[in-house]
Parts: sequence; structure tokens; C-alpha cells
Amino acid sequence: MTDVKLPFTARVAGLPSTIPFVGPEALERRRGVPFDVRVGANESAFGMSPKAASAMRDAIERIAWYGDPEGYDLRAAIAQLHDVNVDEVCLAGGVDELLGLTVRMLVEPGQAVITSLGAYPTFNYHVTGFGGELVRVPYKDDHIDLQALVDAAHQHAAPLVYLANPDNPMGTWHDAGAVQDFINALPERTVVVVDEAYIEFAPESAQWPITTTDPRVLRMRTFSKAHGMAGARIGYVAAHAEAIVGYSKIRNHFGVSRPALAGALASLQDTAFLQHVIDEVARGREDYYELARQYNLAYVQSATNFVAIDVGGGERARALLAELESRNVFIRMPGVAPMDRCVRVSVGLPADRAVFAERFADALKAI
Amino acid sequence: MTDVKLPFTARVAGLPSTIPFVGPEALERRRGVPFDVRVGANESAFGMSPKAASAMRDAIERIAWYGDPEGYDLRAAIAQLHDVNVDEVCLAGGVDELLGLTVRMLVEPGQAVITSLGAYPTFNYHVTGFGGELVRVPYKDDHIDLQALVDAAHQHAAPLVYLANPDNPMGTWHDAGAVQDFINALPERTVVVVDEAYIEFAPESAQWPITTTDPRVLRMRTFSKAHGMAGARIGYVAAHAEAIVGYSKIRNHFGVSRPALAGALASLQDTAFLQHVIDEVARGREDYYELARQYNLAYVQSATNFVAIDVGGGERARALLAELESRNVFIRMPGVAPMDRCVRVSVGLPADRAVFAERFADALKAI
Repeated sequence: MTDVKLPFTARVAGLPSTIPFVGPEALERRRGVPFDVRVGANESAFGMSPKAASAMRDAIERIAWYGDPEGYDLRAAIAQLHDVNVDEVCLAGGVDELLGLTVRMLVEPGQAVITSLGAYPTFNYHVTGFGGELVRVPYKDDHIDLQALVDAAHQHAAPLVYLANPDNPMGTWHDAGAVQDFINALPERTVVVVDEAYIEFAPESAQWPITTTDPRVLRMRTFSKAHGMAGARIGYVAAHAEAIVGYSKIRNHFGVSRPALAGALASLQDTAFLQHVIDEVARGREDYYELARQYNLAYVQSATNFVAIDVGGGERARALLAELESRNVFIRMPGVAPMDRCVRVSVGLPADRAVFAERFADALKAI
Repeated sequence: MTDVKLPFTARVAGLPSTIPFVGPEALERRRGVPFDVRVGANESAFGMSPKAASAMRDAIERIAWYGDPEGYDLRAAIAQLHDVNVDEVCLAGGVDELLGLTVRMLVEPGQAVITSLGAYPTFNYHVTGFGGELVRVPYKDDHIDLQALVDAAHQHAAPLVYLANPDNPMGTWHDAGAVQDFINALPERTVVVVDEAYIEFAPESAQWPITTTDPRVLRMRTFSKAHGMAGARIGYVAAHAEAIVGYSKIRNHFGVSRPALAGALASLQDTAFLQHVIDEVARGREDYYELARQYNLAYVQSATNFVAIDVGGGERARALLAELESRNVFIRMPGVAPMDRCVRVSVGLPADRAVFAERFADALKAI
């Protein structure tokens, strides 16, 4: 059957068979050995709120029932948290799904979409998947170059721009005022995704209230990072009601699982646990900074739950990654120069950080 | 801000703001009263396998980790069950999500897609959402009219045809031989979704082995019905590897939750529990048949976990639905004539069936 040709659409037929990320499980299967330390996907080492875990377990008792397709209770809680209306919030199975819906909603095939060279691959995956043309502007000093995004948006009359703040994979951030200036400088018909997956870990100066008055701004949040619920798949976008109407025309209405809805609601209310995670992550970052200094390596000040450590060049970083993998440590690294001089390590538990420090030292010696 | 116009794509701007189903929770919020009996969404009254529940609870302990984006272990178990290869199985967050991906993968805007008039609204939602043109052929004697589907596929050179077997909302089915003849009669370039969400409840004669040799056949299964895991959101398609490559180019790779992966794997292995559910559902159908006979009402022999009871016309059925809702009973009914002479009631627990019987009697009197 090698010559089978299904009647794919021209677009899908023309897409490459790439995937945004290879999961650690696939690497484990390939190697036949499990990882001892999993600090590569910016998952939370500090787990989820016990109240959220309890709510999820309760939800399993009723797992035969579909979750509320309107996710009303959770949306009401989110709306209250941000002082917006319920009809200004849309849920989905994580920011990844929201990014796909956003591209589908706003980008005509052939239109330019602006992002940064080396930024979140899953956004690029969706842009390409829906026929958009990616325009990637370089980072500047390991930061997203806001002016370059604005310039590209004007030059290409782009319907959509992507900004992660704080940024992944570098962990840098822009202060609220700079982001506001950036938005004000965008073309009138350009919508911006502000992906705030890591915002809870950022300094106050980077935090700005969610407002829904400007319909060009889509603020995305996730329960996968600070809330420790990556495996549950749930995130949201807060935006002008007109954008939410757009999402509701195309979203998978029954797509969010019942345990995710229940867990997210409970987690949102457990602010003490969230603060505990934020504090632990701050301590973990300091450990990684100290580790870098110990080996005279530069590092990037981070507003996230991971740290990019500069090991002196792309070749060295890739070699280090391989050495760490062979020592059963899972980390990742930025995909493009000049950021690929770094490896990116997520904050693990203190015990994980100790193991990481040991094997990092060994791996450094080996390269 | 009433004159706001986001730069939606032409297609999304032109879509109506319809949703496939209003959830029971939305009805409860509207009425301010919870339902006593929820037998409207064909959810399983018999819950999930205790082993699956235990696996899901265990998965919550590691909810901070993303699930395996390849879902390898579950796909391997599914492949073994059907004696196909792992690369002939794709997972997603339920059949709903798979239907969306399928349309996106195969249907160019403006192309005709064939389904039955009154069949699964969520399929239609996705066809319209991706710009396909729905061609709906009538049912014949409450059955999907296979010949009419074939004729329409030829007439419109359709890339895609939808067949639910057993059918929802009528509960009828076609035997394996008839379905095979149907597939053989389709145009060479027409792909068929065979949605087997209810197949576990069907007679042996309707069951046929999953084969992946014919690339035009996409067999879809769910854990939402017999496995009692609707709230977890997980289903799969088994098909030719080339189709699976297509899905993998566009699917949300990290979209299935970790508890869903774990629960589905355990449920698949608990065949005794599955048989228990199938037996209980068969008993429940008999109860509903008996109830119908008691009031001299016709009913449709069902191969699913629900029964369509003929109450004598669309007006009467809609009135009965309203009467039942006012008595805190949630059921649904087919959307179009002549099937809308029926109400559709899911098999509940014996106690639920008893309450349903009582209120059904009262509601009948009231109309």
C-alpha cells in the first residue's frame, strides 16, 4: 500500500510531518531507560493544590458525565478573579489548543503572522497548519524584541502577532508599561496573543490587570505551570466578548475534561498554595543561578519556572544535552542561535536539583 | 464597543453562533433547579471500571506532568485489541475532536460532505466550520439509508461521508455485510467515517473486525459510552497508517489528559466490567420497551444505550420533552421529522428508570 494517496486537502498534503516537541516518554522508549530527573518541560515540581487534587478525585466519581460544555462555574471564578465578565472568558484544553483556535479564527491562508525566531514552536505549528506565513524576528539580548514585532506587523499588515511574556525558552520578560506601549504601536487591525503561561512567576512590574476593552488583545493563561496541572489540559483566554463569540463558533464545546474543570476551579481558590509554589520556584531559580556561577557560566535572569544557563555555544549546549540524557536527566534547550548557547532547565524539587547539579558537573567535564 | 470588528477570517465571520448541544448544566442554570434524572446525553449510568477509576486517581498524583503526547501505551493496547499496528491508531479528546480533525484533513472549502438528515450535529458543526457544504440524505424507516449516502457521494464527488453505526439518535444499526457493501459502492476517492461510539451495545451481526487495509475507512471509537468515561474526553481512530500521518500533522499533540490515558488503558483491559455494562444496558432497553408497550407507544429497537420512543408526532414529542424538563427529567429528542415523533431516553440505573417511568406517565397525561 505504499502508493496509497488519501484525498487530503492541498494544505494538509503539503504540511511536513513535524511535531512541536518530542515527549520525554518517547526518549525513554528510544533509550530503553527511564529518566531519573525530568526537568525539561517546565512542569511544576511542586504538584497541584491538595484541594485541587481532592476536587479532581471527586470529579472522577462522576466521570461518566460530560463536563459542562460552557464550563460556567470555572469561567465565573476566572471572571471574578480578573474583574471581567463571564462572556469575556473562553476555556480550552490548554493554551496549545487556544493557539490553534486563534490562528484558525484570524488568519487567512497566505497572511503573515509575526512571532520571534526561537519562540514557542507549537504556535508556529498551528500557523503553518492553517496556511499562515510565519515571519520571525530575532530576539534582542535574549529578550523578545517588541519594536521588531511592531515593525514586522506594520510591514506585513499581519492579522496576528505572538508574544509570550514572560518568554519561553529564555525566561526573560518585559514590564507592563513596555507591553502596553507595544500594543499601542501595533496596527489597528492586528491582534496580539499575549501568552502569559508563566506570569505567576514574574515580578510585579511584569503583571498588568487583564482588561477586555481592547479587542485586539487576547490574554492567555494556563493551569499547566504554577497550578501544576499540565496533565489535566486546561487553560483560558480572557478577551473582548466579540473574540469569545468567535472562539465559540469553532471550539470543541465538550473538549475540556470534567476533572480539569473541577481541579482548576479549586486551584484558583487556593491562593496560599499558589504562593507556596511561586516561593519554591524562586528558591529553585537561585539554586540554578548559583550552580552556573560555580562553573563560571553566565545565566539569564528568569521570570519563569526555568533557567537558561549559557554554556558557551550551540555545539557545547547540544553536547551537554546529550551527556545529560545519557545520565538520565531530561532537559531541553533553545532551538536557534544565539539562544542555543544555553540549556534550559526547569526548577525541580530540591532533591532533583541536587542530582541535576551533580550530573551537570559530570556532563560539563565530559564535553 | 458594539461596533467592534475583529479581523476574523471570512469563514469564521460568516459562521452562525450555533452550538451542537446545550448541556444539561445550562438548562439547570436557566431553570434554577437541578435535574433529578439525567438520561439525555447517552452517558453511562453504570460508571467506569473500578480499575480505570483507580488508574485515574493514580494519574492525578502525577498531574503536574504532561501526558505522553504519543499516547504510546494506550495505542499499543488498542492496536493489540484490534490486531493492527500502533501507527494505525490515533488518539484524541473524544470522537468530537477526531471529527473536526477529519474534516480539516480531507475537505476543501466548498466541497460536499455527505451525512444523514438528523444525524450527529457535531459532525455538521465541524463540516460547516471548515467550509464544507453539507449534503443531508433522509433516513429510511428510521435507519441510515446506505444507498442514498452512496448515491449522494457519487453525485457530489464527496471527499467524505459520515456513517454512525449503530446510529444516534435512532439507535438502529446495519449489519457488517451491509456496511461492507456500502463501502465497496463508494467512489474510489471518498473516505468514510464509521462512528462506532455505540458499537459495544450492538448485536454481533453489526460488529466487524477493524481492518486498516482500505485507506478510505476511518473507524472511530470512544471511551465515553460503554466505558463510562465521557467526562475524561478520550477516543480514537483506527485507520490506514497514511491517515494517521495526516492526523499527526494537525492534531493537538499534548491534547489528551494524563488521567484519560491511564483510565482508558485500564478500562480496555477490564473486559468483565465492560460486559457487565453491556448486560445492564440490555436490561434497561427492555425496561423502556416495556414502558412504551404499557402506553401503547411504538419504539425503535436499539443497538445502543438509549431508546427512541415514538409518542406520535413532533409537536407531542416537544411538548413531552418540556413536561419532563419541568419534572426535572433531562432527555433529548431527534431534531428533524419524521424521527422527531420520538423522544430519546438513555438507559439509567434501575432507580432512575423507575422515576423516569413515573414522570413519563405524568408527562404523557399532561400533553
